[in-house]
Amino acid sequence: MKVIRDPEKLNRLLKRLSRSGKSMGFVPTLGALHLGHLSLIKQAVKDNKVVVVSIFVNPAQFGKSEDLKKYPRFLKKDLELCRKCQVDFVFLPSDLIMYPQGYSTFVDVKGLSSRLCGVTRPGHFLGVATVVVKLLNIVKPDNLYLGQKDVQQSIIIKRLVEDLNFPVKVKVMPTVREDDGLALSSRNIYLNKQQRKEATVLFKSLWLAKSLIQHGQRDAQRIISRIKQLIGHKKQAKIDYIAIVNLKSLENIKKINQQGCLIALAVKFGKTRLIDNFLINNV
Amino acid sequence: MKVIRDPEKLNRLLKRLSRSGKSMGFVPTLGALHLGHLSLIKQAVKDNKVVVVSIFVNPAQFGKSEDLKKYPRFLKKDLELCRKCQVDFVFLPSDLIMYPQGYSTFVDVKGLSSRLCGVTRPGHFLGVATVVVKLLNIVKPDNLYLGQKDVQQSIIIKRLVEDLNFPVKVKVMPTVREDDGLALSSRNIYLNKQQRKEATVLFKSLWLAKSLIQHGQRDAQRIISRIKQLIGHKKQAKIDYIAIVNLKSLENIKKINQQGCLIALAVKFGKTRLIDNFLINNV
Repeated sequence: MKVIRDPEKLNRLLKRLSRSGKSMGFVPTLGALHLGHLSLIKQAVKDNKVVVVSIFVNPAQFGKSEDLKKYPRFLKKDLELCRKCQVDFVFLPSDLIMYPQGYSTFVDVKGLSSRLCGVTRPGHFLGVATVVVKLLNIVKPDNLYLGQKDVQQSIIIKRLVEDLNFPVKVKVMPTVREDDGLALSSRNIYLNKQQRKEATVLFKSLWLAKSLIQHGQRDAQRIISRIKQLIGHKKQAKIDYIAIVNLKSLENIKKINQQGCLIALAVKFGKTRLIDNFLINNV
Repeated sequence: MKVIRDPEKLNRLLKRLSRSGKSMGFVPTLGALHLGHLSLIKQAVKDNKVVVVSIFVNPAQFGKSEDLKKYPRFLKKDLELCRKCQVDFVFLPSDLIMYPQGYSTFVDVKGLSSRLCGVTRPGHFLGVATVVVKLLNIVKPDNLYLGQKDVQQSIIIKRLVEDLNFPVKVKVMPTVREDDGLALSSRNIYLNKQQRKEATVLFKSLWLAKSLIQHGQRDAQRIISRIKQLIGHKKQAKIDYIAIVNLKSLENIKKINQQGCLIALAVKFGKTRLIDNFLINNV
């Protein structure tokens, strides 16, 4: 496994491999790897001859009041995990090499970026879209692996890949969960004991919604009210949003129809903001 | 020479050629080819094994009140010229294949895009940057050829290529001019006889500025005043801007120093807006 910090060097090396016809899989991460990331990496290893993982805590996707500085960093452990998973290249750029002085170019996926998490995290998806375009140009993968947990991110990246004609296939892997249903996230380590216990309410809320729909409920507002009630019982939980939206446009829907929908929510526990979602198909 | 309308088909064909190690040159155009375009194409043919020319009147870079609909289109002649120049592929996409329903992604080169032509053409360079990213992803050239006449465009594209890590070399070719100095432009055909005659004032203004600098003038405002006087004598000329700017930031400068500068101007003759510029080096 090679750890490479210079984008041009990585690009040169990968270009050579790509010319020899080897299919390439790419998993972009912020590090602090957990079993969710590993499921993407394992799938990439299964599907491709060459696998690249990037570890980059992208400052452009953090708001000024967000947790950029204290975002968990476990580089040594991350590299060990990548090695064990038989990753071929880890791309480990510095902030300055990604955003040198005079950096000016930003990629905006309009509409999609301002909904759901985009409301409380303005600029977040601008940063995500921008760094993904950069990474795709450096790595030029055949297959890109993303996690269903960050569903808005994966929808935005699919949109930009299609809009900007990137010749890459986007593969979205299922959310990996703890035994009690909590979706794995690098931010879970911020939770204290009480918060960790209460955090299962995200998963429970999604199950509640799913079960209501299975029992015939089609009114989005009624489902949302029931979830609000459920979360209301948790002392440390503060709802950011609960939304039932169209899967493509991310616009709120009133009635759940046969096309299904996306149920997504964000809840804060102290300073820690957690997200989760269920896709509802074939209603 | 192959004329291809489908981005994915072109991408597939070119990928095969690129894998066989052939260097690729790309000349993006809006069609209505003149000797300026041909100088780019000839240089591309000289430098590369495979040459791609795109002909696409990109709606995203035209303002609502601009000349998108009446922009000159001479497809048959354009294709003939490309054939004569030994172009290998002409990419000829439709508006709908480039911007299908639901299209949402835009590339913004902040700062640079809002100066000079960006003041009277807001959104123009957003459209340029966006289509160039799309074209670079479809063609994946080694070398990209642009004209010095559209200097702001070439500076913005160089910036986005660097910022977004596109592995392509940008080559800017000198402005091609008529015998009387008028820079070639597809829009010159809009000019009536009187306007055509007066339009040489752009070139004359740049020469005046150059000569003043050569004789020791360093005050940008004084040079601009002299140009204003000169253009003031032309009955149909209406100044959009005359600017003396830093070559990298495109910000106005007060004093011309050893690093040189860019003198750029835009002048309207009736509805036709013409631009021209001189680079001043080694003062």
